[in-house]
Formats: sequence, C-alpha cells, structure tokens
Amino acid sequence: MSLSGTGNFLNPPCCPDNRHPWYPPEASTADPIAQGHLLLRNTLTGKKEPFVPMQARHVKWYTCGPTVYDSSHVGHARTYLSFDIMRRVMTDYFHYNVLYQINTTDIDDKIILRARQNELMKQLEEDATVDFDKLVVMAKEALEEAKAKSDEKREGILAAIEEATKNKDSRARTEQEGLLEQHLVKRKNLDRDETQILEVCNNSSKDGDSRAKLLVAAKSVLAEKLDREKGHLITDHAVFNAHARKYEREYMEDMAALGIREPDVLTRVTEYVPKIIAFVETIISKGLAYKSNGSVYLSLDAFQEAGHNYRKLNPAGPGGAATTEAEMAEGEGALAAGGSEKRNPNDFALWKASKAGEPAWDSPFGPGRPGWHIECSVVAGDILGERVDIHSGGEDLKFPHHDNELAQSEACFGCHQWVNYFTHTGHLHIEGLKMSKSLKNFITIRQALENNTARQLRIMFLLQAWDQPMNYSDQTIDDARSKETTFKSFFREVEALLRDDYLSQEVGWRMGDADRKLSDAYLTARQLVHESLLDNFNTKDAMMALLKVISEANTYLRTSNSKPSVLLLRAIATYITQILKVFGVVNGSDDFGFGGAGDGRGDAGDGNGSEPYIGAMVSFRESVRNAALEAAKGGDAKSAIDSILKICDGLRDEVLPTLGVRLEDRPTGTMWNLEDPEVMMREMKEKAAKEREIQISKLEKQLVAREKELEKVKSSMVRPQDLFRSDEFKEWDEAGVPITMANGEPVSSGQVKKRKKAIEKQEKMYADIMEKSSNNPQELLDSVQGEIDTIKAKLADLSL
Amino acid sequence: MSLSGTGNFLNPPCCPDNRHPWYPPEASTADPIAQGHLLLRNTLTGKKEPFVPMQARHVKWYTCGPTVYDSSHVGHARTYLSFDIMRRVMTDYFHYNVLYQINTTDIDDKIILRARQNELMKQLEEDATVDFDKLVVMAKEALEEAKAKSDEKREGILAAIEEATKNKDSRARTEQEGLLEQHLVKRKNLDRDETQILEVCNNSSKDGDSRAKLLVAAKSVLAEKLDREKGHLITDHAVFNAHARKYEREYMEDMAALGIREPDVLTRVTEYVPKIIAFVETIISKGLAYKSNGSVYLSLDAFQEAGHNYRKLNPAGPGGAATTEAEMAEGEGALAAGGSEKRNPNDFALWKASKAGEPAWDSPFGPGRPGWHIECSVVAGDILGERVDIHSGGEDLKFPHHDNELAQSEACFGCHQWVNYFTHTGHLHIEGLKMSKSLKNFITIRQALENNTARQLRIMFLLQAWDQPMNYSDQTIDDARSKETTFKSFFREVEALLRDDYLSQEVGWRMGDADRKLSDAYLTARQLVHESLLDNFNTKDAMMALLKVISEANTYLRTSNSKPSVLLLRAIATYITQILKVFGVVNGSDDFGFGGAGDGRGDAGDGNGSEPYIGAMVSFRESVRNAALEAAKGGDAKSAIDSILKICDGLRDEVLPTLGVRLEDRPTGTMWNLEDPEVMMREMKEKAAKEREIQISKLEKQLVAREKELEKVKSSMVRPQDLFRSDEFKEWDEAGVPITMANGEPVSSGQVKKRKKAIEKQEKMYADIMEKSSNNPQELLDSVQGEIDTIKAKLADLSL
Repeated sequence: MSLSGTGNFLNPPCCPDNRHPWYPPEASTADPIAQGHLLLRNTLTGKKEPFVPMQARHVKWYTCGPTVYDSSHVGHARTYLSFDIMRRVMTDYFHYNVLYQINTTDIDDKIILRARQNELMKQLEEDATVDFDKLVVMAKEALEEAKAKSDEKREGILAAIEEATKNKDSRARTEQEGLLEQHLVKRKNLDRDETQILEVCNNSSKDGDSRAKLLVAAKSVLAEKLDREKGHLITDHAVFNAHARKYEREYMEDMAALGIREPDVLTRVTEYVPKIIAFVETIISKGLAYKSNGSVYLSLDAFQEAGHNYRKLNPAGPGGAATTEAEMAEGEGALAAGGSEKRNPNDFALWKASKAGEPAWDSPFGPGRPGWHIECSVVAGDILGERVDIHSGGEDLKFPHHDNELAQSEACFGCHQWVNYFTHTGHLHIEGLKMSKSLKNFITIRQALENNTARQLRIMFLLQAWDQPMNYSDQTIDDARSKETTFKSFFREVEALLRDDYLSQEVGWRMGDADRKLSDAYLTARQLVHESLLDNFNTKDAMMALLKVISEANTYLRTSNSKPSVLLLRAIATYITQILKVFGVVNGSDDFGFGGAGDGRGDAGDGNGSEPYIGAMVSFRESVRNAALEAAKGGDAKSAIDSILKICDGLRDEVLPTLGVRLEDRPTGTMWNLEDPEVMMREMKEKAAKEREIQISKLEKQLVAREKELEKVKSSMVRPQDLFRSDEFKEWDEAGVPITMANGEPVSSGQVKKRKKAIEKQEKMYADIMEKSSNNPQELLDSVQGEIDTIKAKLADLSL
Repeated sequence: MSLSGTGNFLNPPCCPDNRHPWYPPEASTADPIAQGHLLLRNTLTGKKEPFVPMQARHVKWYTCGPTVYDSSHVGHARTYLSFDIMRRVMTDYFHYNVLYQINTTDIDDKIILRARQNELMKQLEEDATVDFDKLVVMAKEALEEAKAKSDEKREGILAAIEEATKNKDSRARTEQEGLLEQHLVKRKNLDRDETQILEVCNNSSKDGDSRAKLLVAAKSVLAEKLDREKGHLITDHAVFNAHARKYEREYMEDMAALGIREPDVLTRVTEYVPKIIAFVETIISKGLAYKSNGSVYLSLDAFQEAGHNYRKLNPAGPGGAATTEAEMAEGEGALAAGGSEKRNPNDFALWKASKAGEPAWDSPFGPGRPGWHIECSVVAGDILGERVDIHSGGEDLKFPHHDNELAQSEACFGCHQWVNYFTHTGHLHIEGLKMSKSLKNFITIRQALENNTARQLRIMFLLQAWDQPMNYSDQTIDDARSKETTFKSFFREVEALLRDDYLSQEVGWRMGDADRKLSDAYLTARQLVHESLLDNFNTKDAMMALLKVISEANTYLRTSNSKPSVLLLRAIATYITQILKVFGVVNGSDDFGFGGAGDGRGDAGDGNGSEPYIGAMVSFRESVRNAALEAAKGGDAKSAIDSILKICDGLRDEVLPTLGVRLEDRPTGTMWNLEDPEVMMREMKEKAAKEREIQISKLEKQLVAREKELEKVKSSMVRPQDLFRSDEFKEWDEAGVPITMANGEPVSSGQVKKRKKAIEKQEKMYADIMEKSSNNPQELLDSVQGEIDTIKAKLADLSL
C-alpha cells in the first residue's frame, strides 16, 4: 500500500454521504499464514493444508484413547500431551469451538488375556493344595512348554526367510527379519526367566518364602500355561471389567498429573455395544460386510468395488496395496480366529465370535464382542456426527487401525470422506532408541513424573514438533529445565523492578532508542508466535520467539544507561505468561472465577491458591488458642508457654515448608519468602538426617558411660567380707580375708596382704555406694539399668 | 460443502504421491465476519470497515489523552475505559501487536488560567495586609465587574440572535441560542455566588473564620479579577508545571483504579517543544502555514489548493464547509489572539505567541508555545511514524481538534491519509442528561469509584456500545451489578460441584440429551462471542452470549435428572473467565509469572494472591511467639496467656476480615470461609457500632448512679450540728437545732421538732459515711468524682 504523495489520488474511491475519499488499506502479502490461515499437517495428503472447519468455527475432534490393560507410558504422554497442546492453542488462542472426544478401549484381546492370567495366577497363589514341590513341577513343565513354543516360532520364521530369499521377495524377507528380531528379544527374556526359575527351584532353603519367590520368577510362563489350560473357565465379565476400570482410572490420573485438559466427552466401548451391533448390521445390509462362523468381516473387495478407497493413510504404491501381515495380525488381536473364515485374507473383523473364557454379548451374529476398529467409528459417529473435522492418534495406529476405521465409517455412512484432517503424532524415542521393556528404557508416566515436573515435560514437548519423531533424553529434559529457568528468572527480575513506585519515576514517559529497540523486538516476537502457531502448531518456533525477546530484554537491562521501562517489561512478561497459559505451562491456566485479591474474593477461590495458607494459619491459631485457653482455665501457664513455642517452631519447620514458605526468626523480626516446596522438603530431610546422626552419636556416648557406671555399681555393691568368698578358698577370717586355700593349704602371707588391701579398697567403695544410694544400691543399679534401656530404645527408634 | 454420497466424486482433486483423493473443505459462507475479518467503525467513512493493518499484524494506535488542568471525570472514563476494552480485545483476543500511545496535554490555555488563578488566590490568602474589611471591598468590586462582563456578553448574544433572525440564518440562530443557553447557566452560577458573597460580607460575626469564608464564597470572581489585573506577573514555568504534574498524576492514578492498562508509550507536550517547532517549520517551508504577529497559522486556503481535503471527520455538505464559530474558538483557546491576525478566519494556530503571564519557549517565530492540535501530530509522528493505523479520541474532539490534526499531519508529511481508522467514543449521559457542573450531575472518577467497584463500572461499559451514546444511570449500574452477581453465582456453583471427586463418579463418561444440549449452547456461545467481537467490538452481544449460556447451564442444573457433567460445566466456567479476563473484568488479568501452587511458586508470586495471607500468618506467629518468649524468659506467664488470647481474637476480628476470611471459633473447632472483604468490613463496622451503643448506654447508667452517689456523699458529709447553720437563723443550741430566726424571733416549736428530727437523721447518715469512708469522707467524694470523670472521658471517646 502506498498512500503517500498525491500520485495515487487521481481516482479517489467512492465518497459516501458527500464525504472526502478514504483509501482502504490492503494486506501486504498473499501468504496464507500472513492472511491468517491455520495450516495443519494432514496425513491424508501428507501435507500442511489450510484448516477449514465444516461449520462456522466448530471443530469436531476425535482422538483414540488407550487400551486400558496396563500402566500408561511416556509413549502415551507423547500422543495425549501433544494433542492437548494443539487443542489448547486451537481453543484458547485461535478461539475455535472445539468438541474434543476421547474413547478408551475397555474390551480387547490384550485386556482379556491380561485379566484372565492375573485371575488364574491369583487362584494359584491362593490354592493351598499346590505346595512348593508341586509348584516346582508345574513351573518346570510351563518352562519347557514355553521353550518348545518359542523354538517352533523361530523355525517358522527362519523357514519364511528362506522362502523369501528363494523368491527374491525382499519386502517379505525384511518383514520376517523384523519378526525374528522381535522373537530373539522375547527369547532372551525367556532365557532369563529360566535362570531365575531354576535358581529358586534348586537352591531353595524351602522356607515359607520359596513358594512366593517361585510364583514371581515363573509368573510369565505359568500365566501362559494356566491360560492355555484354564483360560476358558473365566467367564465372569466382572473380571475383565475390574481390570479395565483399574487401568482406565490410572490413565485418567496420569493425564491429570501431566496437566492434560480433560476431553469434552469421554466414551468407552463397553457402553456402546448395542450401537456397535446396529452399525455392523448397517454395513452388512449394504453388502459390504459378511458373517462367517459367528464373526463379521468387512469385505475389502466389495468395499472397493463400491467406489471406495482403502489404505488412504498408508497407501502402498500404484500397483495396489499389499498389506503387512504382522500389522494386520496385530490389528486383529491375539485371540482372533484364523484367516480361514475370511473371503479375502485382508478382510478385518467388525465383530468377533467369543470363545469360552472371552467376554461375550448377545448379537444377531451370535455371542461375541466388537472388533477393535469398529468402536471408534461408532462412538465418534454417535457424539460428533457422521463426519469429523479432525481425527487424531499415535503414529502406530495409522495402519491398520485408522485405515480400517475410515473404511468402516465410509461403508456405514455411505460417504467418501469421513475425516477431513487426520493427524498423527510422531514416534517417541528414549535417548534416541525405540522404547521397549527389553531395552530397559521403558518409562511409565509415573516414573517420568518422579524425576521431572509436569511443567518440565510439557516444555520439552513444546520444544519439539508434534508431527515429527520426538526424543526423550537427558539432553532434551535438561534443555527444557534450562528454558524454564530462563522464564522464571525473567519473571523474577520484572517483579523486582515493579516493586518500586514506577509511576513516580515516570519511567514510561519517554521512548528512547533502547526502549524502541526492545519494543520492536517484543512486537516482532508476537508476530512470530502468531505465525508459528498458524504454521501447523509450530510451538518450537513460538517458544524460541518468546525466549529471544527475553534475551533482548536481558541485554536491554544490562546495557541501558537510563532507568528501564517497566511498562514495556511488564507488557512483555504478561504476554509471555499469556502464551504459556495457552500452552498449559502456567499453573492454574484452567482456573475460573473472578479470583485475585479485592472485591471478587470467594467466587471460585480455588483460583487464587490461598487456601492452603489460610488453612495453615487457621489451624495454627487454633492450636495456640487451645493451649492458651487451657492455661487460662486454670492449667499450667508455664507449660502452656512451652507448648505454644513448640507450636510456633512446628509452623516454621514442619507446616510452612510443605507450602513453600521459608520462615526465619531473626533478631530484627521474622522474615519470610517463597521457595520451591520440593527444595525446602529436601533441605528439611537433610537437616533431619544430620540431627539424627548427632542424636545417635550423643546417645551412644551416653550408653557407654551408663554401661560403665552399671559395671561400677555392680562391683561396688559386693560386700567387702564377701569379696573373696569363692570356691578358691576354704576358710576366711571375719573380715573375709581368705586364710586357707580350697586344698587346705594356708594362703601365703603375701597373698593375705594383697587380699586385705583389696578388701580395704572394697570397704571404701561399698561405703561410697551405700551412701550414694541411701543404703539401697539395688535401686541405684535398677535405675542405671533403666537409663540404659531408655537410651537403647531411643537409639532403636532413631535407626528406624 | 457436501461430501456425502458419491455424486461429487467424479472428478477427484489431484492425488499427490499416488495417494487417494482428498477433498478440501470449503468455508460455508462469504460473510466477512464469518471469514474472520475484524470490522471497525471508522469515522472517516461513517461505516464499519474491515480492519487491515499496514504491516503484518502490527497496529499503531494513537489516543488523545487529557488536558491535565482538573480532576478526571466519568466522561474521561467513558473514553479511556472503552478504548482499554477495545485494546485488550485486539491484543489479548485477536493477538494483534498493538503499540498504544497516549499523550497528555500539559500546556494549554486552560492549564495556564487555572494555574495562574490558583497561584494568585494563594498569594491573596497569604497576604496579611488584606484584612477582612479590605477583602469585602475587593470581593464586591470583583462581583460587579463579573456582572458587568456577563451583561455585556448577553447583549452581544441577543444582538446576534436578532441579526440571524433578520437574515433568516437559522444555523447561526441555533448556534447563538446554544451560546445563550450556556450563558444562562453561567449567569445562574454567578447569581448564586453573589448571594453567598453578600451573606458572608453582611451577616458576618467578624470572627477569624470570616475572611476564610469570604475567600471561598468569592473564589470564582476574585480569581478572575486577580488574573485580569496580575495574571501577567506570573512568569515562573514551575507554577504551570506543578499544576499539570498534579493532575497528570491524579489522572494516572484514576486510570489505574479503573483497571485501565497503561499505554505502551506515554508522551507529554512539554517534552516535545523542539520537535514541535521543527514540525511547524516544515509546514511553513511547504507554503502551507504562515507567521503572523509572533504566531503561526495553518493556511486552509493554501492547504486545500495543494489538493488536500479539510474537515474529513466533520464534513458539512456539498456546498463547502462553514465552520462553527464557537467550536473553532474553543479549539483556539481562551488566551488566543484575535482573528485579525489570520488570513482566513478559519485558519488555526500551530504556534501561539505568548503574552506576559503565559509560559513561553524560544522559537524562530518568537517566544511562544505550541497550539493545541499540533502536539498530537508531532508526538504520534515521533513514536508511531508518519502514518497510524488507528487514532482514537472522545466524540467532542472530532472537530476541530482531530480535523486540524489531520490537516497539519497531511501538510507536514505530504500525504493524503495520515490515519487509516479514526475511532470516536459516543457521548456519556448521566441519567439521560449531558453531564455538567451546573446540572449537579457532574461525577469525578473518584466519586464514581466510591459507590461502585471498578469491575461494576467496567461491566456497565461492556454492556453498552463503545461508539454510541452511553448512559450512566442507577439503572445501568444496577444492571451491571446484577450481571456481576450472575457470574459470581455460576462460578460458585461450579466450584461446589468440583469439590466432589468427579472422576470417581464418572460423570464425564457419557453425553446424554441434556449434556448435549448444554454443550451445543456452549459452543454456540463461543461462536457468538467471536463474531460479536469481530463486529466492531460488540462487547454487549458477547456479554449477552456469556450470560445466555449461564442461563442454559442453570436450567440444566435445575432440571437434569442425572448427575451434571462437571467436565462441561468447568469448561464453560473456564471459558467465561477467559473472556472476562480479556475484557479486564477478572482481577489479576494482567499478572505474569508461573504462579499457582506447586512447583512454580516463587516466580513472580504476585500472581497467586497468597502474599497477604502469608504476611498475616507470619506476623500473627511473630506476636504469639514474642509474647511466649517474654514469659519463658521469666515474664509473667499468666499475663502472656492473656495477651496471646487477645492476639488470637485480633487475628479473627481485625486482620482476617480485611483479607476476606471469616473465622468462627466453634466448640467443634475453628471454621473458616471466604467472603467479600467489603461485606465483612461493613459487618464489622455495624457490629462495632452496636457494641458502642451498648457501651454508651451502660456508661450512661453508671454515670447516673455515680452522680446520685456523689450527691448522697456530699449531703451525708455535712456534720449534723452544721445542718441548719445558715443565714436563715441567728441562734442554735449545741446540737445545732435552730432556736432564733435571723430576725430575732424564736423558731416555732413545731419547726424545732422538725429540725431536731432532721438532725437526728443526719447524725445517722453522718455516722454511716464516716464508717464507710474510714473517717475520710472527702477521699470518698474525690474517688466518686474520679469515677464520674473517667466515665465521662470514656463517653467522650466513644462519641468521637
């Protein structure tokens, strides 16, 4: 746009109401991001596409949840945290009206097997008739069976590799080699199990623990053996349900711990069985699925003949797709029927007939359960309607799960595009390697949160692309921590500057070169953040833009000669906080209510974080008051004062540290400041440990002294005339000096002299002890012994 | 978009990488708002125009600040609060990169006059040679002069009306009639002044206060007289500067009290004089301004001949504009030179020669000061560059101020569109009438904030259009209060629901019809808010959309049979809070830092609002501890307990109420909850008032009793033999019984008998008082008198 000069003004635009002309500004570029279009990487095209919702700014968004058979790991965090960030940006920054649905798979072959095996193992554990010896026999049998199955599997794979080599089918060969690799890892685990089992069986001391130890060592092979033999006997739905509920709950807790916003709608498969049956019937009625042996399969041939495309997400070249056997098998589940029931080996199950020991629902096709893929089509269809704007999931679900979902939904709804934008998070690598239990780099979400805060994890995610492989490593975590520190330091610095009365300093009343430079940097950062977020949620560049303006601000603060512009610095700090809130990095970003101090208090007070402090204050006051009231009512005022002082120390040393408040009683008055509670707790632990050590060493010294005293009292208590009354001698004089030895010989005069002296010494000791103990040396002895017992008890307490 | 069926799929779009076809969704409408265009009412076209910034999303925004000669009133609030809301929406919701500049006019004829008059009045007040009588003479003179000037003015107006009537110039007549109306209001004030002045002059009791009273009553006429006579003697810049600084500071404080975000850049005129001179020189050099008698004027004829348009904001019809005399005069200022200096009577001053008593800066045109309009062109040009995206101001500045700004800037920069979007707030009406001091509906911002919270005022603004006349009335304020309550109640209700462990209730795991209806209402509200804000910042409709979804939620909560979906309710509450934060309604919306409880504590803790509680707790603990330590060191434990109990009561009754915490010591333990501190303070005041009344009534009863006792002691103290020792009698017997009357006659036997009886009674009373007072009745009397004095002092204290 060029409005200066007069050259452009020869043909002024229309002038309504006899007004003077006005020249509408024009956008300076046609770049889609500059035009404000949000781009989103779409797996359906493999490209970033402008995001256009179907209706107004409403976004119907479906995300596959977990199969709840085990604890969630950081791979789950990778998926749900990445989508949480995208959803927050869409909702809180771009103000789309997102309806976000997650569905948990609470019926699945993995759940069935795990629940059944756990149940059978529990029964075995509780079966008193199976003693250690019987268990040894069972475990050894189970081990042999497992080894035999493993050998058989390996031979099959090797044969397939040979076949593929012969046929020069490199794709099949590569696939089989992959299977071999997986197999070898499993075999290694089995070998390790064998070593442990044999160790417990052979070297056992046969005490009560042996049986329990063997149950642990042989858990894997026993569970498989028991399941083979007795799995079919587990028919109670409650067994499967309880297993799913446990891990579902754990998953929800993990999500909350990661600060992931709850979905708008949560569904689970077991509540959708009737709608799933209806959905499958519709597909059958359209001739695109068929019943076979109690199961129902989608017919890929019929589907494609009807004009639909299969494998939209995972197209395999122009010559028609060859499916990947292992992937397809994984998709069908460990308890699937053999391929012989299918018209085309790639057809997949919509409904699976249940065998004994598998949960079953009645259906027109016979008793069975939903296939894995069908649930997503049905629950999303029910909540979001027959078409969704965005469908999300982990990279590993792309094929066959998501491609099968697309096929089912198109088949049922009779459409050609069920999902407009399909988004997949990239894989997660641990220190650059795929995560697996055998590689010992398997990390559950709970473990991850032991070593890092949710905020640090989130910053780590923000610094990597959602749709690319992501590295979870010491280096990426350290990087996130260091960036967190950068933000914190900047906030602290601005806060400190704001403590002054900046209005009276009139620091805002000018704009020098340095201020202008920082202001430009700030406005540029805002622009970069906006454009980065529009560009496929590029949070990494957005974070770098925020960090860059902090770096500029730090330079400004260090180099400027005049007073810094706190108006500008505060604007920057406020803006950075706004964006970090959108990203979910700032605590309480999901809070609501008027909050803050002042007139709005009490309307959703959970927003302002004061409750713990108020609670601590109130209970402190109550304790002090009760102690004082007790004394006022006639109790002992002095001892009340003692307990009040103890309560005061307790507030400082025990209560406030957990709230992150550090109190110091200085001669000039009590000071306080805020501190990371974790740091404070650690300090307290260290301090307590040191104090305990000092205490122990003090008590040990006391113990030595008391024991010495005990010995002394014991020896002093002997009456002088009894000092030599032993079998060594036969006769004594009245003072107790031995005269005749046991053999009748007289005691030598030298010896008599020596003994006399000893008795004289004892007389003195005896007199002393009698005086000291008021003629009751036994009482003194008991008292010293009591002291010793007390010290010993204290030491025992301290060493706990 | 229609993607269902197969009909649309005959010509699939391109399929990259051998992919299956993907059909890009299309927007459902071409409506500019639905397309995401922000519309903004532009005074330059009189219409809502799509807002397009010149560069990327950067917005250069200039707003005229106040002329700082008096306290800010709600008319200022109307302008700055409205633009604050628009700026927050632009910055925090639409994420434009706004650089917002405000300039305060700290040199102006109004400031000169007010500062000069204040200074002269202060000198008069301090002048001891002007006693009351001299002041009476001065005041009466000043009054007569004022009346004469007023009469002269009226005659002039009446003549002009006659002239206009004769010429049938209805526009001129209307204008003069308007001036007459203004004049009559002023005359009424003058008449009121006269009444008050004469009252003080004539009815005065001539005490020390009279002079001060007269100075107040005659302030207006005296200030004008003094300024006429001695104004030229005030030459110290510091006088004008101090006046401006005082009201500038007050303005900033008022803006802060209203929760208006500070501008990014604040400028003031006095710091820009050299740049203003250079700007004026440029216009002269282009031949569009001329020097005349030490002043510089813009030549409207030359300006228009150069191809520029004048009065873009206030065009006056096709036949060429006739300016409004009164408006033009107002624009030139009360101290302006006469029109005789101008080539064209509508030319306006860029630089004004300063007379004696007017601040002056050296310039190539002679000593003078900037004209009113020039400052805005110069400061905006300096900070924002030669063109601005948005220029804002109050409706009353439209002409001539803003039109003159446009002319100057176009003249200097040689452009034809200095401002792309000119925005003007609508007028403010108080209870439907224009605000004016004479109508007694003039309200300063401080007064407004005494009766309403800043939040209530802001809600009232949000509920009216920024570009339409706005009504400030009991009804609109009540409406705002009631809406505030609606929000609060909703937040409280959701908070209460969230206290339960909703995860275990699994309330989110389904979406029934009622949930779905509320979810739809929520998503619709989001869409409405978004579209309303795009539509010229229609915050009223946005607020109504928020309130509507609350109403839907309330219906849902009252009518639903199943447990409410707290996930959904929380999402709604969080969203409403987000929007209210954008609007600046939620406290702390400008905070920064990680805030909240947990690991982020201590990084800009001012965000979480806990500090006051921690501070209260720490100082409470310190007091308790000191009292206890004192006792432990050997002090009196019992009195320590007493003071500790007092400290406990003080925390409950004095400290915590100011923090909005209500404490109750119940037998079952101490309870607490949060409450509006204002409510608690009011309760406390009422409670204190009641207690004071009880105390007063108790003390008054005591007083009556003590005074009765005093009388009794006094009368009992009389020795029996002295009872009748008065002038009435001449002689008494030894017991004190009167025998002879003063006139020598004997006392009648009846009287003697009566007096004897009285003396016997007095003997008893005397004996009693001697016993009671241990023979020291005077001491008793003093003691009772002392008690009376104490009670009276207490009563005096209480009635303060």
